[in-house]
Amino acid sequence: MTADTEAGAVGQTNTAGTPTGTRTGIERLLAPSSIAMVGASNQEMRIGGQVYGNLALNFKGALYPVHPRDQAVQGDRAYRSVADLPGPVDLAVIAVPAGHVAGVIEQCGERGVGGAVVLTAGFAEAGPDGAALQRELADAAARTGVRVVGPNCIGYLSSAGGVAASFAMPPGTPLPPAGPVALVSQSGGFGSYIAEKAQLAGLRLGWFVSTGNEVDVNIAQVLRFLVERDETRVLLAFSETLRDPDVFVETARRAAELDKPLVLLKAGRSEEAARAALSHTASVVGSAEVFDAVCRQHGVVVADTMEEMLDLGMIFQDGRRPRGDRIGIMTTSGGAGVLLADGAGMAGLSVPEFPPGERDAIAAKMPQPFYGSASNPVDTTAQITAAPDLFQTVLGEVVGGSVVDMAATVTWARPGAANDAIIETYRSTDKPFAVLCTTWLEDFQKAGVPTFTDPRRVVHALAALARHTLRRPPATPEFVPDEDRARRVRSMLVEARNLGEDVLLESTAKRVMAEYGIPVTREIYVRGVRDSGPDEVAAAAAKLGGPVALKVMSYQLPHKSDVGGLRLGLSGADAVKDAYRDMLAEVARRAPDAMISGVLVQEMAPARLEIGCGMRHDPVFGPMVALGPGGIMIEMLAETALLRPPFDAAAAKEAIGGLLGGRLVGGSRGLSPGELDLLAATMTGLGALALEVPEIAEVDVNPVRVADGGAVAADALIVLADDAEES
Amino acid sequence: MTADTEAGAVGQTNTAGTPTGTRTGIERLLAPSSIAMVGASNQEMRIGGQVYGNLALNFKGALYPVHPRDQAVQGDRAYRSVADLPGPVDLAVIAVPAGHVAGVIEQCGERGVGGAVVLTAGFAEAGPDGAALQRELADAAARTGVRVVGPNCIGYLSSAGGVAASFAMPPGTPLPPAGPVALVSQSGGFGSYIAEKAQLAGLRLGWFVSTGNEVDVNIAQVLRFLVERDETRVLLAFSETLRDPDVFVETARRAAELDKPLVLLKAGRSEEAARAALSHTASVVGSAEVFDAVCRQHGVVVADTMEEMLDLGMIFQDGRRPRGDRIGIMTTSGGAGVLLADGAGMAGLSVPEFPPGERDAIAAKMPQPFYGSASNPVDTTAQITAAPDLFQTVLGEVVGGSVVDMAATVTWARPGAANDAIIETYRSTDKPFAVLCTTWLEDFQKAGVPTFTDPRRVVHALAALARHTLRRPPATPEFVPDEDRARRVRSMLVEARNLGEDVLLESTAKRVMAEYGIPVTREIYVRGVRDSGPDEVAAAAAKLGGPVALKVMSYQLPHKSDVGGLRLGLSGADAVKDAYRDMLAEVARRAPDAMISGVLVQEMAPARLEIGCGMRHDPVFGPMVALGPGGIMIEMLAETALLRPPFDAAAAKEAIGGLLGGRLVGGSRGLSPGELDLLAATMTGLGALALEVPEIAEVDVNPVRVADGGAVAADALIVLADDAEES
Repeated sequence: MTADTEAGAVGQTNTAGTPTGTRTGIERLLAPSSIAMVGASNQEMRIGGQVYGNLALNFKGALYPVHPRDQAVQGDRAYRSVADLPGPVDLAVIAVPAGHVAGVIEQCGERGVGGAVVLTAGFAEAGPDGAALQRELADAAARTGVRVVGPNCIGYLSSAGGVAASFAMPPGTPLPPAGPVALVSQSGGFGSYIAEKAQLAGLRLGWFVSTGNEVDVNIAQVLRFLVERDETRVLLAFSETLRDPDVFVETARRAAELDKPLVLLKAGRSEEAARAALSHTASVVGSAEVFDAVCRQHGVVVADTMEEMLDLGMIFQDGRRPRGDRIGIMTTSGGAGVLLADGAGMAGLSVPEFPPGERDAIAAKMPQPFYGSASNPVDTTAQITAAPDLFQTVLGEVVGGSVVDMAATVTWARPGAANDAIIETYRSTDKPFAVLCTTWLEDFQKAGVPTFTDPRRVVHALAALARHTLRRPPATPEFVPDEDRARRVRSMLVEARNLGEDVLLESTAKRVMAEYGIPVTREIYVRGVRDSGPDEVAAAAAKLGGPVALKVMSYQLPHKSDVGGLRLGLSGADAVKDAYRDMLAEVARRAPDAMISGVLVQEMAPARLEIGCGMRHDPVFGPMVALGPGGIMIEMLAETALLRPPFDAAAAKEAIGGLLGGRLVGGSRGLSPGELDLLAATMTGLGALALEVPEIAEVDVNPVRVADGGAVAADALIVLADDAEES
Repeated sequence: MTADTEAGAVGQTNTAGTPTGTRTGIERLLAPSSIAMVGASNQEMRIGGQVYGNLALNFKGALYPVHPRDQAVQGDRAYRSVADLPGPVDLAVIAVPAGHVAGVIEQCGERGVGGAVVLTAGFAEAGPDGAALQRELADAAARTGVRVVGPNCIGYLSSAGGVAASFAMPPGTPLPPAGPVALVSQSGGFGSYIAEKAQLAGLRLGWFVSTGNEVDVNIAQVLRFLVERDETRVLLAFSETLRDPDVFVETARRAAELDKPLVLLKAGRSEEAARAALSHTASVVGSAEVFDAVCRQHGVVVADTMEEMLDLGMIFQDGRRPRGDRIGIMTTSGGAGVLLADGAGMAGLSVPEFPPGERDAIAAKMPQPFYGSASNPVDTTAQITAAPDLFQTVLGEVVGGSVVDMAATVTWARPGAANDAIIETYRSTDKPFAVLCTTWLEDFQKAGVPTFTDPRRVVHALAALARHTLRRPPATPEFVPDEDRARRVRSMLVEARNLGEDVLLESTAKRVMAEYGIPVTREIYVRGVRDSGPDEVAAAAAKLGGPVALKVMSYQLPHKSDVGGLRLGLSGADAVKDAYRDMLAEVARRAPDAMISGVLVQEMAPARLEIGCGMRHDPVFGPMVALGPGGIMIEMLAETALLRPPFDAAAAKEAIGGLLGGRLVGGSRGLSPGELDLLAATMTGLGALALEVPEIAEVDVNPVRVADGGAVAADALIVLADDAEES
């Protein structure tokens, strides 16, 4: 590759056949027709030398080394500066000292460069001076429109485009053939560790992109680009922070549409790690729980470990999809079969027994008398070694079984007939099929057969594949704000605002809820405290009918029960009046400074179950709506259905249905369909409220009392955002 | 090894220095001074030839081939039959057709053989005919006292004893040097797969025993033998069924005393697997939940996956123990550090920041300006490559840190200075220390450095090590039955027995509870239904004071509330009398055939929390006592503290303290210390009851109502065992 081919670069079509002029900066950056390397070096042991060597070895387009003094770099004619380049290039790879990088970006902007990969370190990760340099770089990128990957990254590799803009590869290494798996990582060092491990495990990597400090282009944007690439079928990402939640969610949606699984390994989940990540990437770490919930909502698979991410890459990369969740298992050792069946059952797969006819067919093929099991899992025992073709015959019966959607087997044989039979069987079917093995992996890897080293991991991967295939993420509804409703609600906030309060009265909060279709207790608010108060509350109680509760309303007493401001289960006018007087007297004694706004007379709502529902703002993903077991259980269980609005009732029901291992819904005492509908309405109502009235910072509805097919909010707390935070 | 050395076998001391005569059959079987092989063959490709070859290559004691016709086997003088052996031998290895095995055992008994390993298959795993042969074999073993491992097993390997009584090893393979790890597996085939994988991973296996069909010697008994062996420091077991729970528990206790970790991988946890295990081993599979609980109670580590079992073997095998749970982490890439810190935090380790002095010392040693983090996790960044000794210097500071009890690092370097530095550092400390790496494992394995391939797995193993070291399993108390108490309780069962009922009245069940120190509601039982009933219940209510509940007592109405036999929250004589009449009328209408034994007048107990507690008999482990969130939550959460009696209050409190992620106890609304004491007393009371009165099959105390420092059983159900089941 020499600079002599440069003529093709400008104004021509790029590798994807799109004219350069219509491509975005990120497209030109990651799929370039022409590349310049600023900081290219003749010293191969230096990064500028190693990366230029890698580029030259692999890139088929125009390549220009930029060097301030040398006439040529590694045999190619060198240019003094970016300004001297013979034409605009798509990608500039930059490896000059940190202090010079912003200046180079300015030059790139002037020369019409699409994007740059900045390999140089010494920016935000390197203390205050570096942070200042990074701000300069960010400004230069914003001003010029040159898209920037990095700084402090290890670059990227694209087999399809022949781009080895990275020092992750030792000098002189050709890119692997284009494979269906793309890996993106903020971390360069550990990213290349993962990439190496992926290739060792048999993953066919076609892309590896590291994004480093993400001064401009972030992981979400890279994924957004990669998901549209034809050669990419699986996206793997190791992310420490997520800077672009909307692009991330949009990418997740596209990935689901295109059936390209997106698997994420997220670091910074624990407090310990958040501290480490903060010092390492100088960026905000959002809540791991919210992150997981958003991923689940949008069909993104969250891997708990690096190896799990690679296992999922392995099972997804051949593109096979099961038609159901039924696995057929064949082993030559009962113990392995039991472990595989175990893991399958726990991972949510079913291990159906074979129909008698198929069972008999398998048994009949084995040497007689047959000591093993011809049902599922099929255990051939060592009898299988009796005839050379027997293994393949029986395995074919298992894989072809009428109740089998996918299959797994185990081998500890050396390369030879048994393993060849497995490869043949894999090729003969389009059902997902995976092998458990330890040592002799190479033949399987070459043939593309998914291989795993642990029984649990085989079936876990297959189960993830089945879930991904059979469970489509809920559609994200188009959300049209109801401005009238929002206006009505805003008028309810005026009183608190005028008083300088940031928490609404319960009586107001419940009116807000009701505007959003959230079922609340029937109640009458008796404003003020007057001599006629006892009669007014008694009249209100009579109007509501049945036993009632009295609640003191005061901006100073959000925790009214702590000062005696709550009376429950009152029946009859006398009891109500007495309780009213008692309550006000006690509150006056215990909280003499509180201004009493009035008294809420509320129906008593029965409860078989107490549910809590709320809305909070996550620093990364914005408003999130949660629902879970409420009352005292809310802190003890710490388990919630969590959704990012907008979402519809179906999504809410699915999320609630997943609580407590699926046991909150149904059964003799769990939620009935009608109760589930009302709770889903509570969630969607809070979601709409959060989107329409963003100045509401926080909502707590606890408890929602559930009984006899009904569900009503018996208490509600609404917190307003500080004025400063209002949009 | 030839039969010429046989003279040393009889009446001499064995390898452990104990005279043969005082050793148990299992000791002679597994640590033999002399071995005969029945079915030894000159054909090396047959099992009898392969195993004899393996024995001859490795065994230093007397070895006798038995062959009905050949004069010599593989160069050693052969004997016609067991009867012809020149003296009693410790171990007979048997590989003759299934139909002859029982006869050979009979001969072994006559000739004074200690034990036999039966490699032959075709027994219970092979249908009815095989099952009959297995019964014959069991009879022969029982009659002769010859202990039998197998049949249908792959034999065993002992490096310390030089015994290769197995066809798991290819012909001509010497045993590995004696290592600290012992592996026991029912499954022969998959057991040898695990053994191979263990050795590949760098585990130093000294024992591998497969127990096959377990006609006599089972996994628990083998572990009981191995735990006392000096060369064994870690016990790994893959178990499909557990046949000897008492020996298992005793072994677990010894393992804890000797600080020899016992790690179990249990198959047959899901329904799918239970079916497979049933067909494969023809044995009962107990509840996985009970199994886990018994293991936890006795300090046995349950591995979820095969790889986890091997990871734990890896971290335990060097015998190092941490003094605390604080991990020091050093990486050259921030991303890896975040993942490690993440996993550490989630696994329960702490990742403390270093004291300022130590932090400064690390930073001062790095090239200036230092871009990384000198706190914990230490991130040196690639700057570490500036000087060759720097890696070891900094790693030494981390490992030696004053707040560090154990350490982990990561490398993706090829063999060379960095990896040598890791090995040197490992050798220079006695703190547990582990390395995350992918490809270049061999040097680490040779040096005995624990290595792992996934960040989560490193810290998960270290966390298991810390838990094992810092948390001693609760002592099992000496249990002395109180026969007087048992007699008093038995007298309370007479009425139900006489009536042919197997469920006690609630009023009786609560008296039983009270005998065992279990707090119950204050209550008065008004026997019979008379005209004076209203006055009697009103008097009882007055005596109790406060609001009361009325409950109809009838053997025919265990679910009294379904027919209106329950009235709650009654205050005042009139209300109590009215409710009594109403209730009896409604029950008479809805359950006209029920015989009413009387009415229970019970105080109303307040409840902030409802707890359920119970006792059941597990088919494997016998009585088990459970406690968990009660009321409606009991089915939804399905989470219980589960203990096998006898246990003391401390064990109960520890188990309850683990519920709901540790959140059931403490906090503003969780259990207070006094409430916890009462619940622990409820558990220990049920444990004592189960042991003293085994004819009680089942107890359900739900709810125990908890509030204001108190906890009382508000309902109790006791089910008697069928007469046939009584002991």
